[in-house]
Amino acid sequence: MQDYIHQHKDRFINELLDLLRIPSVSADSKYKAEVRKAAEFIREQLLKAGADQAELCETAGHPIVYGEKTINPSLPTVLVYGHYDVQPADPLELWHSPPFEPVIKDEKIYARGACDDKGQVYMHVKALETMLATNTLPCNVKFMIEGEEEVGSDNLGIFVKNNKEKLKAEVILISDTNIIANDCPSLTTGLRGLSYLEVEVTGPNRDLHSGMYGGAVANPINILCEMIASLKDANNHITIPGFYDDVQELSEQERAEMAKAPFSLEEYKKELNIGDIHGEKGYTTLERVSIRPTLDVNGIWGGYTGEGSKTVLPSKANAKISMRLVPNQHSHKITELFQKHFESIAPKSVRVKVKPHHGGEPVVTPVDSVAYQAASKAFEEAWGKVPIPKREGGSIPIVALFEKELGLKSVLMGFGLDSDAIHSPNESYGIFNYLKGIETIPLFFKHFAALSKA
Amino acid sequence: MQDYIHQHKDRFINELLDLLRIPSVSADSKYKAEVRKAAEFIREQLLKAGADQAELCETAGHPIVYGEKTINPSLPTVLVYGHYDVQPADPLELWHSPPFEPVIKDEKIYARGACDDKGQVYMHVKALETMLATNTLPCNVKFMIEGEEEVGSDNLGIFVKNNKEKLKAEVILISDTNIIANDCPSLTTGLRGLSYLEVEVTGPNRDLHSGMYGGAVANPINILCEMIASLKDANNHITIPGFYDDVQELSEQERAEMAKAPFSLEEYKKELNIGDIHGEKGYTTLERVSIRPTLDVNGIWGGYTGEGSKTVLPSKANAKISMRLVPNQHSHKITELFQKHFESIAPKSVRVKVKPHHGGEPVVTPVDSVAYQAASKAFEEAWGKVPIPKREGGSIPIVALFEKELGLKSVLMGFGLDSDAIHSPNESYGIFNYLKGIETIPLFFKHFAALSKA
Repeated sequence: MQDYIHQHKDRFINELLDLLRIPSVSADSKYKAEVRKAAEFIREQLLKAGADQAELCETAGHPIVYGEKTINPSLPTVLVYGHYDVQPADPLELWHSPPFEPVIKDEKIYARGACDDKGQVYMHVKALETMLATNTLPCNVKFMIEGEEEVGSDNLGIFVKNNKEKLKAEVILISDTNIIANDCPSLTTGLRGLSYLEVEVTGPNRDLHSGMYGGAVANPINILCEMIASLKDANNHITIPGFYDDVQELSEQERAEMAKAPFSLEEYKKELNIGDIHGEKGYTTLERVSIRPTLDVNGIWGGYTGEGSKTVLPSKANAKISMRLVPNQHSHKITELFQKHFESIAPKSVRVKVKPHHGGEPVVTPVDSVAYQAASKAFEEAWGKVPIPKREGGSIPIVALFEKELGLKSVLMGFGLDSDAIHSPNESYGIFNYLKGIETIPLFFKHFAALSKA
Repeated sequence: MQDYIHQHKDRFINELLDLLRIPSVSADSKYKAEVRKAAEFIREQLLKAGADQAELCETAGHPIVYGEKTINPSLPTVLVYGHYDVQPADPLELWHSPPFEPVIKDEKIYARGACDDKGQVYMHVKALETMLATNTLPCNVKFMIEGEEEVGSDNLGIFVKNNKEKLKAEVILISDTNIIANDCPSLTTGLRGLSYLEVEVTGPNRDLHSGMYGGAVANPINILCEMIASLKDANNHITIPGFYDDVQELSEQERAEMAKAPFSLEEYKKELNIGDIHGEKGYTTLERVSIRPTLDVNGIWGGYTGEGSKTVLPSKANAKISMRLVPNQHSHKITELFQKHFESIAPKSVRVKVKPHHGGEPVVTPVDSVAYQAASKAFEEAWGKVPIPKREGGSIPIVALFEKELGLKSVLMGFGLDSDAIHSPNESYGIFNYLKGIETIPLFFKHFAALSKA
């Protein structure tokens, strides 16, 4: 099996580069046709790999790629989930090479989606090819690869509710997370949830001359800044009433366990070139990015942003604001609390609109399940080390829904690195990680089938 | 003279429309050629009106139009100042007709620059034509029409310093301000100064995934909002140390005089469609926009501002911030105070850059001068009412420099209305105001010449 991967590794890489050349940005409607092209690409490659069937399932938005390979209905089934859509690539000027013209440098593939999630999805397509070519697929497999993960997976949620029979399986396998380091493999046991909103603050009914009106009329940018600033106190606690009510506090022992993960604050600051870290008082950096909820402004705009100066008192100011949630917070409840609070703190001199975007629930995955054990053994066999269980700060909103609708737990077996800069300019994915993933996935299938029999 | 204006009013209007069709946006370098075209237009029209000579004086930036008509060196000389450049037109989507395709509706000309300052400048060109055609020019006149007023007049300042002989005159006449209403003419006796800066807050060295880093790494947008919010206290006093040190406080009597100007808070709120006014505690709306300094964010941008959502923790956030100044504040001193304070309040988790843009000094003009009396009589004769002296909130940075370098006071005889929406979408200028201005200016010359003799 390793031989097969080795023989075909150049083709495996080139096929991924072809996929990365398709700008499948789901958030921006002008890429609609390209998003579909990426779905079509995955569908065809699943068939080439040997799937019994693969189809595009239409939704109100971008299509879902569904495929399956059944070797024996009496054997367990693994449902592989991933996404072929990518984050927008801007700010383009910070990319060293065009985001959709992948280049290989220092053993890494640079392109938007290289890691998140095209690279990690395509490992599963090539793992299927490898298992079928080497006759080592020990159970059934289904693929559900969506095109709206970066915009909230709303239509996947509907698809899952309507196709419970089709999606019947024993476990869901997802590669959309990171390991701690190539010499320190890990398995993700928790993800944060998300509430994402857009706010608009309107002052006067038109842009005004800041000399003629400045000082007497509320400036929506100043007001928006004041409102945003008021959302955190001096200790960086979030001030929205009820925000922390459902937050699951970890025991001292659990926190001590977490603290064992290798982490260097100096390297962390150096790698990001920051003079200091910044976060909620009373928690470590690893805790702040995993077991604690957050509030970040993801975008802000208003007034004159062009070259030179314009003395305008603008009519409107806008911001995109998201909150990462932890067990047992609920996305809808937090979204409502934010909306209610934000509207309540607006002065009478402005009007405020709050528009909820997508959200997702936090998840914790069990470490004692057959699937987790199989993933752990797969890493041990391929990497020579038992993977460390770790909570991650990102969100895969759909994982909680899988559990609710399909009653299935997910195994979060990702192969990325924090330094892959996903969602950032110059996103990359290590060729070592890509090929090692293609090697590790079949081992998961092997151990999962074996442990399931036992 | 009135007959002449009446006979030629259609042509006077059409010539202004031609000038308004030239997008002379000085802040944006891509309009450089258009800005020059506007200068060329003014030069040609001055010659057609009968000026002895008119030229484009080159500067490091946009050219200055200089022209003159000398009837007798022994007579006094009036130096007319104005500007042919305009503010950027965005947000374009809010214009009811294209900003550089002027239309006449309800007796108003709609276009960027209709009032500020092309319309008001062109009144002087047509007033010159009228006086020469009717043989009523009673003294000498010089024109200095610049193309960088909207970006700080830096090059005009250099031009003035280097051409004191050429610019010799008894008074400077400027039409770049407003009257209270068409049934309530006024003369501007004071202008606010300006400090304008651009700030950049940098957090991590690249855009980050808000899930992987959110909560532990300073978000430059959140930090920028907190820094901006901290620049004012709960009473909307500006918190920059030393900011108010030089502010000239008015006496109770002066404030009582100001309070006599007609003003309806209800109409003010209705016209702007705001639920409430918003400003410094302890001062009226008219005071807030004239005798009190301000701090407004004119533009802000950072992170993802496109369609949909992106869960990014951005590397940078920026804002354009300006402060209106009152006597006896100094632009350079306030700019330094801001810079020093803003840098001092930045947390160690971010880096801050503060870049000063242009500034200008506040001015107060005397009401007892021959020139002011002449302007007052001109209004009285043309409008049938003695104009009310009033302080204005806007800035004409160059006025203070004229006094310093040329030792000349300015008369601020503007004919615009607050409702002309200068610097805003759908800027307009009333045809009544345009023609009435062309009628009033020659009367200023008449009374100024007469009073100067006396």
